[in-house]
Amino acid sequence: MVVPLHSGLLTVSDYEKTATSLLPVHPRDYYNGGAEDEVTLRENKRAFQDYTIRPFCLRDASSCSLSTSFLSLPVSHPIGIAPTAFHRMAHPEGELATVRGAKASSALMIASSWSTTPLEEMKKEAGGHPMWFQLYVYKDRDLTRSIVRRAEAAGYFAIVLTVDTPLLGRRLADTRNRFQLPSHLKFANFASVAQEKMPSASNESSAFMNYVSGQIDPSLTWKDVRELAKSTRLPVIVKGVMRGEDAVEAINNGVKGIIVSNHGGRQIDSGPATIHILREIVDAVQGRVPVWMDGGVRNGRDIFKALALGATGVFVGRPILWGLTVAGENGVAHVLEILSKELEYTMRLAGCPTIESIREAKDIVVHKSFFARL
Amino acid sequence: MVVPLHSGLLTVSDYEKTATSLLPVHPRDYYNGGAEDEVTLRENKRAFQDYTIRPFCLRDASSCSLSTSFLSLPVSHPIGIAPTAFHRMAHPEGELATVRGAKASSALMIASSWSTTPLEEMKKEAGGHPMWFQLYVYKDRDLTRSIVRRAEAAGYFAIVLTVDTPLLGRRLADTRNRFQLPSHLKFANFASVAQEKMPSASNESSAFMNYVSGQIDPSLTWKDVRELAKSTRLPVIVKGVMRGEDAVEAINNGVKGIIVSNHGGRQIDSGPATIHILREIVDAVQGRVPVWMDGGVRNGRDIFKALALGATGVFVGRPILWGLTVAGENGVAHVLEILSKELEYTMRLAGCPTIESIREAKDIVVHKSFFARL
Amino acid sequence: MVVPLHSGLLTVSDYEKTATSLLPVHPRDYYNGGAEDEVTLRENKRAFQDYTIRPFCLRDASSCSLSTSFLSLPVSHPIGIAPTAFHRMAHPEGELATVRGAKASSALMIASSWSTTPLEEMKKEAGGHPMWFQLYVYKDRDLTRSIVRRAEAAGYFAIVLTVDTPLLGRRLADTRNRFQLPSHLKFANFASVAQEKMPSASNESSAFMNYVSGQIDPSLTWKDVRELAKSTRLPVIVKGVMRGEDAVEAINNGVKGIIVSNHGGRQIDSGPATIHILREIVDAVQGRVPVWMDGGVRNGRDIFKALALGATGVFVGRPILWGLTVAGENGVAHVLEILSKELEYTMRLAGCPTIESIREAKDIVVHKSFFARL
Amino acid sequence: MVVPLHSGLLTVSDYEKTATSLLPVHPRDYYNGGAEDEVTLRENKRAFQDYTIRPFCLRDASSCSLSTSFLSLPVSHPIGIAPTAFHRMAHPEGELATVRGAKASSALMIASSWSTTPLEEMKKEAGGHPMWFQLYVYKDRDLTRSIVRRAEAAGYFAIVLTVDTPLLGRRLADTRNRFQLPSHLKFANFASVAQEKMPSASNESSAFMNYVSGQIDPSLTWKDVRELAKSTRLPVIVKGVMRGEDAVEAINNGVKGIIVSNHGGRQIDSGPATIHILREIVDAVQGRVPVWMDGGVRNGRDIFKALALGATGVFVGRPILWGLTVAGENGVAHVLEILSKELEYTMRLAGCPTIESIREAKDIVVHKSFFARL
Ligand SMILES: Cc1cc2nc3c(=O)[nH]c(=O)nc-3n(C[C@H](O)[C@H](O)[C@H](O)COP(=O)(O)O)c2cc1C
Ligand SMILES: Cc1cc2nc3c(=O)[nH]c(=O)nc-3n(C[C@H](O)[C@H](O)[C@H](O)COP(=O)(O)O)c2cc1C
Ligand SMILES: Cc1cc2nc3c(=O)[nH]c(=O)nc-3n(C[C@H](O)[C@H](O)[C@H](O)COP(=O)(O)O)c2cc1C
Ligand SMILES: Cc1cc2nc3c(=O)[nH]c(=O)nc-3n(C[C@H](O)[C@H](O)[C@H](O)COP(=O)(O)O)c2cc1C
Repeated sequence: MVVPLHSGLLTVSDYEKTATSLLPVHPRDYYNGGAEDEVTLRENKRAFQDYTIRPFCLRDASSCSLSTSFLSLPVSHPIGIAPTAFHRMAHPEGELATVRGAKASSALMIASSWSTTPLEEMKKEAGGHPMWFQLYVYKDRDLTRSIVRRAEAAGYFAIVLTVDTPLLGRRLADTRNRFQLPSHLKFANFASVAQEKMPSASNESSAFMNYVSGQIDPSLTWKDVRELAKSTRLPVIVKGVMRGEDAVEAINNGVKGIIVSNHGGRQIDSGPATIHILREIVDAVQGRVPVWMDGGVRNGRDIFKALALGATGVFVGRPILWGLTVAGENGVAHVLEILSKELEYTMRLAGCPTIESIREAKDIVVHKSFFARL
Repeated sequence: MVVPLHSGLLTVSDYEKTATSLLPVHPRDYYNGGAEDEVTLRENKRAFQDYTIRPFCLRDASSCSLSTSFLSLPVSHPIGIAPTAFHRMAHPEGELATVRGAKASSALMIASSWSTTPLEEMKKEAGGHPMWFQLYVYKDRDLTRSIVRRAEAAGYFAIVLTVDTPLLGRRLADTRNRFQLPSHLKFANFASVAQEKMPSASNESSAFMNYVSGQIDPSLTWKDVRELAKSTRLPVIVKGVMRGEDAVEAINNGVKGIIVSNHGGRQIDSGPATIHILREIVDAVQGRVPVWMDGGVRNGRDIFKALALGATGVFVGRPILWGLTVAGENGVAHVLEILSKELEYTMRLAGCPTIESIREAKDIVVHKSFFARL
Repeated sequence: MVVPLHSGLLTVSDYEKTATSLLPVHPRDYYNGGAEDEVTLRENKRAFQDYTIRPFCLRDASSCSLSTSFLSLPVSHPIGIAPTAFHRMAHPEGELATVRGAKASSALMIASSWSTTPLEEMKKEAGGHPMWFQLYVYKDRDLTRSIVRRAEAAGYFAIVLTVDTPLLGRRLADTRNRFQLPSHLKFANFASVAQEKMPSASNESSAFMNYVSGQIDPSLTWKDVRELAKSTRLPVIVKGVMRGEDAVEAINNGVKGIIVSNHGGRQIDSGPATIHILREIVDAVQGRVPVWMDGGVRNGRDIFKALALGATGVFVGRPILWGLTVAGENGVAHVLEILSKELEYTMRLAGCPTIESIREAKDIVVHKSFFARL
Repeated sequence: MVVPLHSGLLTVSDYEKTATSLLPVHPRDYYNGGAEDEVTLRENKRAFQDYTIRPFCLRDASSCSLSTSFLSLPVSHPIGIAPTAFHRMAHPEGELATVRGAKASSALMIASSWSTTPLEEMKKEAGGHPMWFQLYVYKDRDLTRSIVRRAEAAGYFAIVLTVDTPLLGRRLADTRNRFQLPSHLKFANFASVAQEKMPSASNESSAFMNYVSGQIDPSLTWKDVRELAKSTRLPVIVKGVMRGEDAVEAINNGVKGIIVSNHGGRQIDSGPATIHILREIVDAVQGRVPVWMDGGVRNGRDIFKALALGATGVFVGRPILWGLTVAGENGVAHVLEILSKELEYTMRLAGCPTIESIREAKDIVVHKSFFARL
């Protein structure tokens, strides 16, 4: 790979520590933080420890393929980049560096509605490399429609509708920091003052919370999803589903894929870890559409567990921001390299040389209660 | 709202820290402490973490109503003020400030028998705003009857009989402090010396323990409840029920509502958290009377969980005392504001825009063992 | 009571801290320590937290009686003194002070075979107050028989045969300390040099371990129990039973009572807490003989739990040694006073005013898994 | 025994602390470390705490025999030495000292393919004392065959094929240390430069990882096992099985014994503790071949638990390296002495005076969930 190796940066956790020490307090808290008491934030990560991998041996580990497909798109590994806002706070080249890192490591990237680089520029930088576009539905529905049109025109492969943000979760550090998008940055996909800048903060809500309550439509229902799905030739994926019934609703309303997500613990607090919910959703969906997950994925074992529990792939949010902070595009690529390498190691050591074989192996990953005998 | 915002006071936990640092040792320990090893005190709060909220998405979060009713009384949110003694130790204006805070935030308040302000003055301060009166039964039954009469006359809406205090729990810090009501304060609802002042402390029991063993009738049974219920036109609610059988007994003896409570971990130690017991009581009661709970409620997620497990509403004790300590009536109102705001956030993010919808949503809140598969 | 109150000594834990700071290292480690990694030692105490008390309310707490009977002997509370060796290391008056403390607080005391005071002197000090005698079976069976005869003659009410000590558990601190009975003390019930003094320590075993392996008969079986039971007119109780099958064996061999015990975590390590095993034994015994327990009992809630799970009473070991260390006979009496007071509080607050009512109350104490719903 | 006692070295944990302080950083990390986040490393040890020993009493503890047999070989205790590489990093006499220690304490030793002493010299030092030879299959199959021939010729009793190392687990400390075999040492069983020395380290993989990926055949399957079993007159044992299905596969392919192992947490991370998996394998094997385990065994209680759950014996890796580091052959012998002594204590105190009696005793060891009642 092209990434110059940063000696000592061997794991995502190394990147986390380095990035956390490099970032100024406000962006650091914005990136790392979660809602309220951050119970869900911590639980997303911790819950992976409730699962354990029961390896097979002697299954010929000489070759190993991580390739699979996301919708009909072949991908060389099942690790995508979750949509996250404001990359220029992490690195001057912002989203463009992320796109280059994604490309270098062949990772599907979901561009955020709230990028600090226009969606067209991102897709242009990506060239033939596939990207999806994450959508927030603005109260101004014409604006929303125009965004979808622009994503189609720019060549995005899918629309990822985020369904867990009718209002912004209360992230206490941001409120205390009176978190505000730095003045030299803006919501680059939007043109009017109200939509490209944040209003001011109050004592009880950050500027960002006020932006969301001012702009984003909290009244969204499945009906809007159905209309969106009909209104675009792109497949619509919903991100933020946390219950089996909702996954079924999604499919019934024309959705082509589901991302199990709690927004990295940034929306509702005291909700379950995504890895705990994954199986329920996979069971409800019964293979009709692919199911991905994000939240707390920090190493290859986590990814293996998600795949074994039925995920088509995973997305990572903060790890990418940490890579971007530490070393721009190279950092992004290296973080993805680390994760795919770790996944490969785990697959080879577990006797599952293909993604398919993970999904098919019985009880390859079990909850720790498997070992209790009552 | 009228409360001037205290920058940095975003959560009940912020209030707790601030109040704890402001209060002198004796009242601080009296307010914050629990019985014996404080196992129940800690467990009340911790046990909420055993439950997790499984949110729905896309259910139109544009409007959200917290209104419900307590008995036939419509309330604008399901968060009441639990009865707690001696408010003048927290703030010179004592219970009157609390009443004003309750009124400002439209919270039903239960006045304690052991207020440092006469019950009539409190109700007068409340004006039309509804209040309930918490009753301790004195050995002197005439006195007890006269208190009930005064509560009726003053315009209280219900009598809340505390059933978990035949004797005062052993709160070790109070015993070590030889806790004594400050000499300028008194049990303001009582007139005789024995009843308005505490006797002295001994090595093994605080002045307050001695007061209770001297004055309060430990022989109370359900028969007394039946008689009380017959003797007053006000509905009688019992506070301190911790078993399904007792809830049924209560109803059979004319009680119109039940508060699941362990007195904030101040009576029996090593008993269960109230949130763990709630479901059992709700199941036993089968909707015949409303069931509330108190104990360890510290944020909106806690309240959501209680409602989902069948509570009609919750009451908070210490949070109010912390608000009162920090900022008098404004602090009380702000604490309630925080809690109702947090509840609203949780409801909107969980896809439950009304109190009713929380109760009806299947498995919206589950015990963590939900995710174990044996 | 006659005990002068030590201000600040409110709980057994207060006594533990004070005694631990007063004692020289060698006796302190001998008293406080357990075998090997001390897993069982810690678990004995911790496991009580796995049980929770579900209180009744309004059951007339005006009177409360702790009286019950141990075999046919009426006792005023169900808390006895477990047999522990070498009391003169804790206090110059040794076992005589303990006997006086037991008497002052009406607690049945089991005298240890390894007292530093002759068994006759102890019983004489006790006067009419009942005591049991704990027996270790020496390889020298004549000696053993003579000890039993002396216990009968001295007026002990029962023989408590310890069945968990065929060899002495490896207590690492004692080995490191080369623990040795101080030269001015001896095994006061024995007369020959080999039996009244410890041999020297080696690198790998304390003097005490060497004493036991030299003197005590490791080949004991139920046959010996049967013979013992036949050979004495006193009832024989076995102490150290940890399995239902063994409890049944005991009864079949003439035993009249069972003490569930793991020797305070001083014999086998990594065994279960006694409170976890109690129910199994009670179920196996089916009421044919009384079942007591010891191990980790530190407060009144612990005792309540043991009674609720079927114990006839409990015995305490280290708490007595701590009381003796801190204040001689008064300390012993005060520790027992604390425990019975705490038990009384718990009974009154739980709505169980008699020992019998604890045992009869359904699910008054439950394992924490009671609150899980899978 | 011949081992001069090191005062203060009473447990394996004492040896661990001493060795860890004596060793230079690189060998220390190599010996003590595990793969990735070391979850499995820690869990191997911790998981023993999930099991508890329910002792019998009064079963005649006067005699106790630890003798059993490994295949048809009688052994005086069930504790063997797991194969570990590079003993000369711990002590100048390396594997020869280990062999002498093994002999002194009558412990079966498995020689590692990667010894720093030739296999012939080790077996010569052992004399009549039995040893097994651990095999890694090199890409160069002629070389592999010649190693097997040499092991046969040298008089090893069995071939132990390690099946969990198609590639070397990522041990982060070794990568950071750029771990390299010290230049004065070599893979003593091999003659060509490529096979006797490690290549250089890179930023992302230690020299050792590169060695393994260069030399070891990752394509191994059960077919190779069958061929190996056919090609040698020695019994073939597989080491590294972690699933019941694989144990059955092993037997079907001519294997004569199974070692449940996860390589001491050094290969796949986030896999289960071996003690958790043991029962599953024992159940699958149904007595057709013996099952041993290794991983995290640190004291006699651990060994007792493994035997009770069906193991024929256990192997220890790091404890031996710690003994070797601290005191050469005497340290090795002393560590084994400690473990067998502790096992003996546990057996006598649990009422199981023979290895057979442990296996036959019902529920002598139970998972802690045994005490939950749902
Ligand atoms: C700083 C930050 C910004 C985010 N911005 C968005 C966003 O604009 N749109 C969106 O759908 N999700 C957003 N998310 C949620 C992520 O897409 C993803 O769900 C989450 O980060 C996954 O958890 P992880 O960070 O633990 O990997 C954001 C998350 C973070 C941490
Ligand atoms: C300082 C203090 C005083 C209390 N006084 C009374 C009282 O006078 N009457 C009563 O019924 N309960 C009293 N309680 C119990 C509360 O009504 C309530 O059950 C408890 O505080 C709820 O727990 P929380 O403090 O964790 O919210 C008191 C609690 C506290 C903390
Ligand atoms: C210092 C000490 C000495 C003991 N000596 C004896 C003894 O001589 N005979 C006996 O049967 N048990 C003896 N025991 C065990 C106790 O009888 C009892 O089982 C144990 O102390 C109960 O646990 P606890 O200390 O946690 O209350 C001793 C325990 C301790 C702590
Ligand atoms: C430093 C070290 C080197 C090892 N080398 C080998 C080896 O060469 N071959 C092998 O099969 N296993 C090897 N192992 C694994 C051990 O055989 C054994 O599975 C493991 O050490 C057991 O865990 P324990 O160390 O917790 O007892 C090694 C383990 C360690 C710690």
